Amino acid sequence: MKIERTVFFISDGTGTTAGALGQLLAHFPQTHFTQVRLPFTDSVEKIEDAKQRFLMAKAGDGMRPVVIMSLGNIEHRALLKAADAYFIDLFNTFIDPLGLELAQEPLTGKGIAHGVMGENYHERMEAINFTLTHDDGMTNAGFEEAQVILIGVSRCGKTPTSIYLAMQFGVKAANYPLIPEDFERGTLPEVLYKHIDKIYGLTIKADRLHNVRSERRPNSVYASLENCKKEIATAENLMRKNNIPWADSTSRSIEELSAIILQKMRQPEK
Amino acid sequence: MKIERTVFFISDGTGTTAGALGQLLAHFPQTHFTQVRLPFTDSVEKIEDAKQRFLMAKAGDGMRPVVIMSLGNIEHRALLKAADAYFIDLFNTFIDPLGLELAQEPLTGKGIAHGVMGENYHERMEAINFTLTHDDGMTNAGFEEAQVILIGVSRCGKTPTSIYLAMQFGVKAANYPLIPEDFERGTLPEVLYKHIDKIYGLTIKADRLHNVRSERRPNSVYASLENCKKEIATAENLMRKNNIPWADSTSRSIEELSAIILQKMRQPEK
Repeated sequence: MKIERTVFFISDGTGTTAGALGQLLAHFPQTHFTQVRLPFTDSVEKIEDAKQRFLMAKAGDGMRPVVIMSLGNIEHRALLKAADAYFIDLFNTFIDPLGLELAQEPLTGKGIAHGVMGENYHERMEAINFTLTHDDGMTNAGFEEAQVILIGVSRCGKTPTSIYLAMQFGVKAANYPLIPEDFERGTLPEVLYKHIDKIYGLTIKADRLHNVRSERRPNSVYASLENCKKEIATAENLMRKNNIPWADSTSRSIEELSAIILQKMRQPEK
Repeated sequence: MKIERTVFFISDGTGTTAGALGQLLAHFPQTHFTQVRLPFTDSVEKIEDAKQRFLMAKAGDGMRPVVIMSLGNIEHRALLKAADAYFIDLFNTFIDPLGLELAQEPLTGKGIAHGVMGENYHERMEAINFTLTHDDGMTNAGFEEAQVILIGVSRCGKTPTSIYLAMQFGVKAANYPLIPEDFERGTLPEVLYKHIDKIYGLTIKADRLHNVRSERRPNSVYASLENCKKEIATAENLMRKNNIPWADSTSRSIEELSAIILQKMRQPEK
């Protein structure tokens, strides 16, 4: 049975950065973490409320909670830390020491990191828009503007990967399905050839694709294992023939696929 | 003129967590940071390559680079840290101390944090699917399954906020536009009433909406300032009348809007 611990993410802003550190909890698989976000904690009242919740968590788990915190206000920080908890303070561990290295006082206002005025915010929103209007081969207009065009068989993960690239990195990612027509013809869709340098392929294992498609259209030819195998083999051949770098999405998350694609974008294949 | 510094995010996995800390650089507005991600740094060769890049960055900026690193392999860590750079090591600052608190050795394998098998990954993918098929009132089927239904006038930010909620938090977020028909009738679309407890509104300032819509359909009635004002006032009235909590997207990022919505979901209005 796993040990139970509660982790609080406390921020005077959205808590996005503190929350991202929650991923590091995966390094401790013997513990089951209950994760609680307390964004916009920007008053003494809210600090006291958080401390009450620490007590309840401690009573429930039998262990003090872990608190990952990012509070600009120094009095609020001190007030919070008077509680019995294990604190990871982003100001202590990261922001203040970095300030020394940079010889600059950090800003301590609320929600510095995730405002609408943040660097690249507008770019990210533009990219999301672009990606949604260029999903699944919806249109070829504007491919000039695309930074990435993902191709692959239907349901291999193109859409969520494109959206992640846009949302997280502001990359204008179109995606274009490879369909039976393409396989019969034995060439990529004509429109893709002039953008070949920004095309990346996704592939997937046949049994996984069979499962995914069966959820959508059970007992169809489309979802049959045989058809999945055929489509995948043909798609991979097309990609190989055209020297398109590709990755298998079967056991990779959208974070992993995006990191692979970004790396290839920045380091063109020799 | 801003000071130039280069920041490297080095990870043996995707670098997503290290990269998230990049948001904290916003606390230092006097510096312009060039951000370089080096994911999948999992061999001595790649470590050496990174060190070469540190030297080039230092030569370019006239200052040593900042390195935010998450490497499970202890020899790789030591090798990298022999370089002249300012290091923020997620193992030193977060993972190892947390291991002491939890009385557990952390896993040090590659890419622990962002695998496809991570907690909630499947849930997030399901939510993205749901959100995309329930975008912009595309269908009312399955509203029972929605955890959030965002409403608001066309182009007020419903779509990117819904997608962010799904992608980041695994929240099944539908969205439904309020259109002139609704305003004439003076009631919400009928389908929404039985889901009223999971509806959240977005609104926007008229001049901002006018700009956004003008990019899409210049000189249309749709985009005219007068029409924007009228639509917004009527939509806000509808939300007020139905006690729907709402937030203004004009100066809020999708991170901020999502944090506000999640908080309201978890703490029902009294």
